[in-house]
Amino acid sequence: MADLKADAIYVRDQSNLRWLTAFDGVFDDEDAHAMVVTPGCAVLHTDSRYDEAFGRAAKGTEVRIDGSRKTHAAFAKAAIGDAAATLAIETSIELGEYRSLEKEFADAPIRMLETSGVIVGLREVKDADEVARMKAAQAITDAAFAHIAAFAKPGMTEREVQIELEDFMLRHGAEGLAFSSIVATGANGASPHAIPGETMLEAGQCVVLDFGARARGYCSDMTRMLFLGEPDERMRRAYEIIREANERVEDALRPGVIGADMHQLAEDVLVQGGFGNKMGHGLGHGVGIDIHEEPVLSPRNKKPLAPGNVVTVEPGIYVAGEFGMRLEDFGVVTHDGFEVFTQSTHEMVII
Amino acid sequence: MADLKADAIYVRDQSNLRWLTAFDGVFDDEDAHAMVVTPGCAVLHTDSRYDEAFGRAAKGTEVRIDGSRKTHAAFAKAAIGDAAATLAIETSIELGEYRSLEKEFADAPIRMLETSGVIVGLREVKDADEVARMKAAQAITDAAFAHIAAFAKPGMTEREVQIELEDFMLRHGAEGLAFSSIVATGANGASPHAIPGETMLEAGQCVVLDFGARARGYCSDMTRMLFLGEPDERMRRAYEIIREANERVEDALRPGVIGADMHQLAEDVLVQGGFGNKMGHGLGHGVGIDIHEEPVLSPRNKKPLAPGNVVTVEPGIYVAGEFGMRLEDFGVVTHDGFEVFTQSTHEMVII
Repeated sequence: MADLKADAIYVRDQSNLRWLTAFDGVFDDEDAHAMVVTPGCAVLHTDSRYDEAFGRAAKGTEVRIDGSRKTHAAFAKAAIGDAAATLAIETSIELGEYRSLEKEFADAPIRMLETSGVIVGLREVKDADEVARMKAAQAITDAAFAHIAAFAKPGMTEREVQIELEDFMLRHGAEGLAFSSIVATGANGASPHAIPGETMLEAGQCVVLDFGARARGYCSDMTRMLFLGEPDERMRRAYEIIREANERVEDALRPGVIGADMHQLAEDVLVQGGFGNKMGHGLGHGVGIDIHEEPVLSPRNKKPLAPGNVVTVEPGIYVAGEFGMRLEDFGVVTHDGFEVFTQSTHEMVII
Repeated sequence: MADLKADAIYVRDQSNLRWLTAFDGVFDDEDAHAMVVTPGCAVLHTDSRYDEAFGRAAKGTEVRIDGSRKTHAAFAKAAIGDAAATLAIETSIELGEYRSLEKEFADAPIRMLETSGVIVGLREVKDADEVARMKAAQAITDAAFAHIAAFAKPGMTEREVQIELEDFMLRHGAEGLAFSSIVATGANGASPHAIPGETMLEAGQCVVLDFGARARGYCSDMTRMLFLGEPDERMRRAYEIIREANERVEDALRPGVIGADMHQLAEDVLVQGGFGNKMGHGLGHGVGIDIHEEPVLSPRNKKPLAPGNVVTVEPGIYVAGEFGMRLEDFGVVTHDGFEVFTQSTHEMVII
């Protein structure tokens, strides 16, 4: 707050609220809560639907719960009082809510300071408890891959495989999905954000499986390929290249390396292998409460990585009309290297 | 647009984009697209991940796709050109995006007009195709209830029942869930937004099941009770009351009735039955692409309903520390009444 030169911060991003409060099992998908944090105090405003559960979760913490029936803007005004103050707000709030705050503070000596990335920045470095939660999420994800490698067969649709994959995670400890899974076979795999559909898996194709579980509020994220019978020489070669790119980066990751350089290292391997300019997305991203967090391993990140950063490493090759491939692990930057959470093999999985 | 006195509208709400384009199977959960609509033209801006799929979806429609690499704000500037114009924007956009638009238009003779509820308002009246999609979603939901009534047993956890319920819908044609299902037994049922957990179902309790499927982009929504063995007299009485409230409202619904009056009618039945002031939420809400749409059946809606409005009817009684009950159907206001989509029985389901 001192760095920001603000007297208080108004937090509406629900993932930021999860992180700030560290409450387990009380947040759902609704954008329902707001918090005002001052140097001495943190008050969370919610409504009658959540009041009781939040009250229980807050016991023994420094967070006070306000369940009173008013708008978030009126709550913010009351929480800050009449003192002259600078109130930091997040630029991710809705314009309409910003207008409500303006109206509420019209007669008050309060200045609003628009900020972005402040709490998101604090979330970049994970502690041991957060790492443990992500390892637990990844263990479920690895088990789901082993299951699906035995389950998937030519003739099934992408959608059938997706449903089985997700059901397995939910029945084996996931509290939810980290994101909607990708199951993309053949040419569909060339679209990094393909929506699983009625396309059938066919012998000779490879299938992109990109999926993750959520456990105690934290995400996992992994991509593996399934080869339906012996792949042809070009596919085999492409797979070797993404594997090499993945492993070279995982060996290089440590505190002090630059996100953009890691992306470039992977791109260099792809170019040398004859698949330059076929990736089309960043090499990796942070993971935590959200599936996409900071820091990223992409040209836009010129900053050095720090111990506690949790990132994915996911080089890909996409050949339009033919196939797509991606090999994605995730792990944590340690004091001298990178600890990979993902336990599934990097060998080709041919079924 | 003429009503708004605007020359163009900039749309960022993803559900509004789904409705305006009527594209099937190309939107996912990402907040990735923007559209500018002028009287003569509709252009959707997306990125390389979606460009191809949107291009295919747009064939034969009046929507043009722009996949060029620029910010949405720069796209908006280019789409509108240099003519003096009033650009309507949605107050649901992020403050940060509003600032980008301001910067982009700093030198242009463009006025931004902040609007809310314009397209949401148009979405209130559903056409026959939208109704057909919601009936299909509800048929899956009804089938899931029949399945779970045979599946659920004392000794199972709420979470186990939830996973089975959701897996059934996904394996029987749902493209997704309308929302995260509620399975709340005993006293947990008194919390209208309970998150299913490790609480076990016990004989003598009743269980609130609130769930819905998504089919071809449209939601369904229903709540039914399961009674674990013969309920006691108080529970039986409460159920009779919510059933009466539900059916009285469904009989009364027709074009011209006021949303708030429907809420009051249900509340009156609850009061007469000795359960006044135990509902704590609105009687119903609109359903469509989003699970919560306009119009609502609650004290805040003083407007008459119109043919094509699709609403839920969900009276509830919540007795803290004891039990909760809700009976929810949904359907469409017709030219002379209300057609209920929900086919599951109103009789007590005792297992």
